[in-house]
Amino acid sequence: MIKTAIIGASGYTGGELLRLLYHHPDIEVAAVTSRQNSTRTVSEVFPHLASFFDQLTFEEPNYKEIGERIDAAFTALPHSSAVEAVHEISSLGDKSVPVVDLSADFRFNDISTYEKTYTAHGRPELLRESVYGLPEIYRDSIRDARVVGNPGCYPTGAILGLYPLLKKKVIKTEGIVVDSKSGVTGAGRTPSTATLFPEIAEGVHPYKVEGHRHAPEIEENLSAVSGVEVKVTFTPHLVPINRGIITTIYTETKTKVSTQEALNIFREIYAGEPFVRIMPQGTIPDTAWVRGSNFIDIGAVAVKGSRRLVIVTAIDNLVKGASGQAIQNMNLILGLKEDTGLTGVPLFP
Amino acid sequence: MIKTAIIGASGYTGGELLRLLYHHPDIEVAAVTSRQNSTRTVSEVFPHLASFFDQLTFEEPNYKEIGERIDAAFTALPHSSAVEAVHEISSLGDKSVPVVDLSADFRFNDISTYEKTYTAHGRPELLRESVYGLPEIYRDSIRDARVVGNPGCYPTGAILGLYPLLKKKVIKTEGIVVDSKSGVTGAGRTPSTATLFPEIAEGVHPYKVEGHRHAPEIEENLSAVSGVEVKVTFTPHLVPINRGIITTIYTETKTKVSTQEALNIFREIYAGEPFVRIMPQGTIPDTAWVRGSNFIDIGAVAVKGSRRLVIVTAIDNLVKGASGQAIQNMNLILGLKEDTGLTGVPLFP
Amino acid sequence: MIKTAIIGASGYTGGELLRLLYHHPDIEVAAVTSRQNSTRTVSEVFPHLASFFDQLTFEEPNYKEIGERIDAAFTALPHSSAVEAVHEISSLGDKSVPVVDLSADFRFNDISTYEKTYTAHGRPELLRESVYGLPEIYRDSIRDARVVGNPGCYPTGAILGLYPLLKKKVIKTEGIVVDSKSGVTGAGRTPSTATLFPEIAEGVHPYKVEGHRHAPEIEENLSAVSGVEVKVTFTPHLVPINRGIITTIYTETKTKVSTQEALNIFREIYAGEPFVRIMPQGTIPDTAWVRGSNFIDIGAVAVKGSRRLVIVTAIDNLVKGASGQAIQNMNLILGLKEDTGLTGVPLFP
Amino acid sequence: MIKTAIIGASGYTGGELLRLLYHHPDIEVAAVTSRQNSTRTVSEVFPHLASFFDQLTFEEPNYKEIGERIDAAFTALPHSSAVEAVHEISSLGDKSVPVVDLSADFRFNDISTYEKTYTAHGRPELLRESVYGLPEIYRDSIRDARVVGNPGCYPTGAILGLYPLLKKKVIKTEGIVVDSKSGVTGAGRTPSTATLFPEIAEGVHPYKVEGHRHAPEIEENLSAVSGVEVKVTFTPHLVPINRGIITTIYTETKTKVSTQEALNIFREIYAGEPFVRIMPQGTIPDTAWVRGSNFIDIGAVAVKGSRRLVIVTAIDNLVKGASGQAIQNMNLILGLKEDTGLTGVPLFP
Repeated sequence: MIKTAIIGASGYTGGELLRLLYHHPDIEVAAVTSRQNSTRTVSEVFPHLASFFDQLTFEEPNYKEIGERIDAAFTALPHSSAVEAVHEISSLGDKSVPVVDLSADFRFNDISTYEKTYTAHGRPELLRESVYGLPEIYRDSIRDARVVGNPGCYPTGAILGLYPLLKKKVIKTEGIVVDSKSGVTGAGRTPSTATLFPEIAEGVHPYKVEGHRHAPEIEENLSAVSGVEVKVTFTPHLVPINRGIITTIYTETKTKVSTQEALNIFREIYAGEPFVRIMPQGTIPDTAWVRGSNFIDIGAVAVKGSRRLVIVTAIDNLVKGASGQAIQNMNLILGLKEDTGLTGVPLFP
Repeated sequence: MIKTAIIGASGYTGGELLRLLYHHPDIEVAAVTSRQNSTRTVSEVFPHLASFFDQLTFEEPNYKEIGERIDAAFTALPHSSAVEAVHEISSLGDKSVPVVDLSADFRFNDISTYEKTYTAHGRPELLRESVYGLPEIYRDSIRDARVVGNPGCYPTGAILGLYPLLKKKVIKTEGIVVDSKSGVTGAGRTPSTATLFPEIAEGVHPYKVEGHRHAPEIEENLSAVSGVEVKVTFTPHLVPINRGIITTIYTETKTKVSTQEALNIFREIYAGEPFVRIMPQGTIPDTAWVRGSNFIDIGAVAVKGSRRLVIVTAIDNLVKGASGQAIQNMNLILGLKEDTGLTGVPLFP
Repeated sequence: MIKTAIIGASGYTGGELLRLLYHHPDIEVAAVTSRQNSTRTVSEVFPHLASFFDQLTFEEPNYKEIGERIDAAFTALPHSSAVEAVHEISSLGDKSVPVVDLSADFRFNDISTYEKTYTAHGRPELLRESVYGLPEIYRDSIRDARVVGNPGCYPTGAILGLYPLLKKKVIKTEGIVVDSKSGVTGAGRTPSTATLFPEIAEGVHPYKVEGHRHAPEIEENLSAVSGVEVKVTFTPHLVPINRGIITTIYTETKTKVSTQEALNIFREIYAGEPFVRIMPQGTIPDTAWVRGSNFIDIGAVAVKGSRRLVIVTAIDNLVKGASGQAIQNMNLILGLKEDTGLTGVPLFP
Repeated sequence: MIKTAIIGASGYTGGELLRLLYHHPDIEVAAVTSRQNSTRTVSEVFPHLASFFDQLTFEEPNYKEIGERIDAAFTALPHSSAVEAVHEISSLGDKSVPVVDLSADFRFNDISTYEKTYTAHGRPELLRESVYGLPEIYRDSIRDARVVGNPGCYPTGAILGLYPLLKKKVIKTEGIVVDSKSGVTGAGRTPSTATLFPEIAEGVHPYKVEGHRHAPEIEENLSAVSGVEVKVTFTPHLVPINRGIITTIYTETKTKVSTQEALNIFREIYAGEPFVRIMPQGTIPDTAWVRGSNFIDIGAVAVKGSRRLVIVTAIDNLVKGASGQAIQNMNLILGLKEDTGLTGVPLFP
C-alpha cells in the first residue's frame, strides 16, 4: 500500500479525499493534519466517517516528521499557505514525495499571473516545475510531475467544455461567455455569515462579476491550447445545493456547425477518457447526475438560425472539481490505472 | 370596490393574485374559477389563505354569468385556452370588462410569431388590439387597453435589463446572451415527475437550450425598442428555489462604458419607476432580496479591459414575473395609482 | 407616530422587525443600533430593504441618548447583554419608555430558573416586574407592563398548543412529549460552521436532546396554567428551511376525547384570537402555510383506540416566534389594536 | 455471477438497486422491467447511470420468461401488484428463484393485519411462508427464506431503535412515541402535486397523524420481540430533503437507566452488526451522516430527573430503508457475506 498524508484535512475537500481514498485499493491514508483539530479523531470532525478511519487522529502539520512516514501527499490548505507545505514535503532529502496540491498555488505557468491574482509566490522555482493537473489535457506531463497543481472547480468545468472546440479551431476565440452555477461546498467550511443556510437557501447569488480569480486560470489554459490569447467573460453564481457546478458556455462557431457535429468533436477528442460522458443529442447535463462521482458530463446545442454553440458541463465540485481529480492525478503520478478508486456510481437523487 | 374574477385560480399565480389582492384597497375578488376544484373553498385549495377568503368558493368558469358580476378580470389559464375566455369576458354586450391575461396568448404583436411559437390563434383581431403589459415601456398604451397580455417571467427579467441600453443605443444588438436561473413555481402546479422535489433538489437543470418559447417574446420587444431586429441567445435553468429569477445578461458596448456610467443610464431611464431598484456599484442582485415583492433589482458591471457589460436582474417570478405585474397593469387600466396593493416589503430570508 | 428604536437590529429578528414595522401605521422606527454595523445604512446590512429605510443608519447603542428620541423600544440582543440595555432604556428619569425584549432575560418569573438555565441576572427587580409576552394567555398583564419578555420561538409553539387542554384539565400533566422541527434562522446570523449551508441542507439534525434552554420556559408557563408542576420532554431538531417551526405534541387525555371535541376546546379557548387558526378536522398544519405571518396554526388528532391526543402547531419562528409577537405585545402596551401592522397574508409557496 | 432481475425498476428504489448492485461483486443485473418505460435504456430513465448499464434495456414484465434467465429477483412494485409477481417468479417449476419484495405485501405475519391495513391478499400461503427482512432480528430465518418482505423505511428506523430495549425489558411497553422525519424520495417518483418541489421546499409537513400504514408493521414486530402487545403512537413528517429519516423515539424506562447504560445495551445487542453504528454519548445522529450508505446510526439520551429515554435513529430511506436492506437480505439468502456490495462510505455533505 502506498502511504499518503492529507495536509489540511478538516475541510470539505479533506473529507472527500478521505471518503474516496477509503475505497482506493492501492493508497492508504497514513496521516491527516489540522492545526485546529489536532488530537481529535476523524469521526469527531466527520461523523459520517465513523467506523472507517477509527485508527486515525488529526495531528499537527509537522511536515518533515510526517514526510518520513509517507510516499505521497495531498495538500488542501488555503492558497499561499500551501507553498511552504508543498516545498517542505516534496523536498525531503533524497526521498521523493510527490504532492498534489488542491490550492491555487501551483496552478499557473506564468508566475506574474499568479502574483497579480493572488499574492507573492514564495517558491517560484517549484511553481515552474509544477504541472497543471487536468489529465484530459496534460496527462503525460502529470505522469512525470513531482508537484501537481490541482485545477480550480470552475476552471475544470469551463476548460474541459471548451478545449476540444478550441483545439479543433471550430469556435472563435473572442466573445466567449462562461456562466457558472455552483454549490456551496465550494465556499469552504470556515465560519462565515455569507454562506449560512438562511443567506443561501431560496436565493441565487451572482458574485465577483467584476472578476473572479478563476478567470485567469481558465484563460491561461485556453490560450495555451489555442496558441492565441483567449479572454473569457466569467460569472460565477452560488445556488442552494451542496455539490455541483453547471457551466453554461456561449461560443460562436467559425462556420456553421450542427449539434451532432459538435457532439462528435467532443466524442472524438475525449474518446477513451474514463471520466468524460458526452450526452446524446437532446440531453443537457444536470449536476444531480454526477453527484459523488468524478464525471464531467458534457452537452452541446447549436442554436438554430445562428452560429451560436452552447455547451453545458456538469461536475461535482468536490470530486472532479477537487478531490476526485486530485486522486486521478495521483494515480497518474504513481503509475496506477487512472480511474483506480474513482469508479463509484453517482448518487441520485 | 372594483369587483374582479380570477379565471383559473388554483395554480401558483392564482394563489399569488389572491394574496396580493387581499391587501388591495380598491379591488375585491368576487369570483374564482377552476374546473378541477369547483365547489371547494379557497382554503381547501390554499390552506395558507385560511381566514382570508372564507366567503369565496371556486366555481365553474361560466364566463357570461361571471362577467355580469364583475368589473375586471384576470385570466390565469394555460396558453390557447385563454383566448376564448378573454374573448368572452371582454366582449359582454356593451359592458366593458378589461382583462389582464397571464397566459402567452396576448403577448405578441406579430400573430405569425405567436402561431410559430405556440399554436393557431382563435381571435387574431383581439390579439391585434391587445397591449403587452410591461408598464416600464408601454405604460400609456396599457392605460387605454381592454386586453393586456401580461409578460412572461423570463422576458420581464430580460427585457427590463436590456431596454435602457438599447434605447440609448449603448450596446450592440448582436451577440447578446441571456442566461436565466429560475425557481420551480414557474413550472406550475400540475402533477409531473420532472418537478417532483427529488428531481429538483440538489440539482441545477438547464433546459430548452435549443429554443425556449420566451425567446421570441424577448426578441419581439427588444426589436421594437431598437428599431432593428434583435436576436438573443437565451438559456433557462431550473434551480432548487421556490420563487425568483436571476437573469445574467452579457452585452458588448459600442464604446467603452464604465460601471458607473451604465448604472446611471438605468437610473435615468427608470427614474420614478416604483418597482425598479438600481443597485449601487458593487452590489449584485439576489433573488432572496425581492421575494414576495414586485421589485426588479438591477445591477451592472463593466468588465475591466474589455467592452463587456454584464447586467444582472432579479425578480420574484410569481410577482413581477406574473401576478404582481398583472395587478400593476390592472391598476393602470383602472386609473388607480400604479403601485396600489403592491408596496409590500420583500421577505428575507 | 410613536417613535421606536430597535436595539441590536442587524440579526434576522431585527430585519424582521424592520419589515413588519414599515407597514405599521402608528409606529415608526427612529433608530437602529448595532456595534458591528454602526454607520452602515439599513440597505447595506439588509439589501432586501433598499428603498424602504433610506434615511436610517445603524448607530452605536448609546441608550440614554437614543432613549430621549423614542417612545418605545425593542431589544434584540443576546441573552444577558439585554439586561442592562433594558434597564437603561426603561428607566430614563420620569420618561416611561416601554420595552419589549426579544432575549431570554425577561421570560421567567422565577429568577432561580433563569439563573440555573442561563446566568446570573443583573436586575432581579426588573425581572420581577416584567411580564411574559404571550398575549393569548397574559394579555391583560401585558397591557400594563413596562417590560415584556418576548417568548422563545419553541415555547410559543409548545405552550399555545397545550394551554387550552391544560386549562380545561382535559389531559394528564405527566408524560407530555414536545417534538419540534425548526428552520435555521432560529440559530441567528452570527458566523458559525454548524449552520453553514452544507452542514444543514439535506440533513435533519436533532440537538440538545439532553436539555434545551427552552424547556424550563415551557414548563414554568404550563405549570402556572395547570396549578401543578408540569414537566415536558422536549426535543428540538434543525431542518433545512429558513423559517418555521412545527411542534408535534403528544399527550394523554384523562377520559376519551374525540378529535372534534379536542378541536372544539381550542376553538372555544381561542375564540376571537386574531392570530390563532384552528384547522378543520383532517388538516394538519404545515410551516409553509404561515410563512411571513403572525399566525399560529393548530391541528389535533385523537388517535383511534387509545387516549392519545396529538397536537400539531405551526408558526413562523421569526414572526409569531419573535418579531411579530413582539409587535403584538407592543401594540397591547401602547393601547393600539392588537393586530395593527400584522395582518399580512402568508407567503406560499 | 448470480443473475438477478429488478421488477419495477424505474422508481427511486429501482435506481438505487441499480446503483448498489453495480458495485456488487457476485450479483449481476440481468433484467429490468417497467411497463411504462419498456424499450427505453437505463440511462434514458436514469441519466446518472449513463455508461454503467449500457447493455441493459427496460422490458415488459413477462415473469415466466424473465424467471428463466435469472437466479434471484427484487420486486419493487406498488403494494398488492407485487403479490402475483412474487408468486409467479418464486414458483417457476422446480427452479427456485428467491425474491426480496420491496412492497408491503410480504411484511406481515398476520394476514388480517395486512388486509385491514392494505387490501385483500391474493396469496395467503405465500405470505405465511415469507420472512420479514430485518436481518438484525430475523437473520437466521432470512437465510432459509424463499420470499423476504423487505421492511418499510419508517419501521426500519423505529424497530431497530426499540428492539434492544424491549428485548432486554428495559422500557415500558406502553406510551411509546415514534416521531419520524422523512425525505421525499420515500413518496416515490409518480407524478403528484403534493410532492412537487414548491409544495415541499421551505415546509415541514406532518401527515397521516390519525394512522399511517407503517404503524401496524412496527407494532407487529415489537410485539413479537416483547411477548406482549405493543402499541406505538407514530407520526410521520415530510421534510425538504431527498434522502433520510430521523426517528425520534420517546420511551419510559422501568428503572432509572443512564445514557451510558442505555448505549451499552445497544452496543451489546448490536455487537458485530455490520450496519449499526452506536453513537458515542453526546452525539446525536443526523441523516446527513448516513446518506448513500446502509448504516443505521443510533444515539440515546436519558433525560435528567426523569425516567425518559430518548432514542434517535438515522437511516437513508433508499438504502437501509429500502434497496440496501434488500441487498443485505439477498446476500443472506444467497449465502454471501452479508455486507457484500454495501460497504460504501456515506456521502457528506
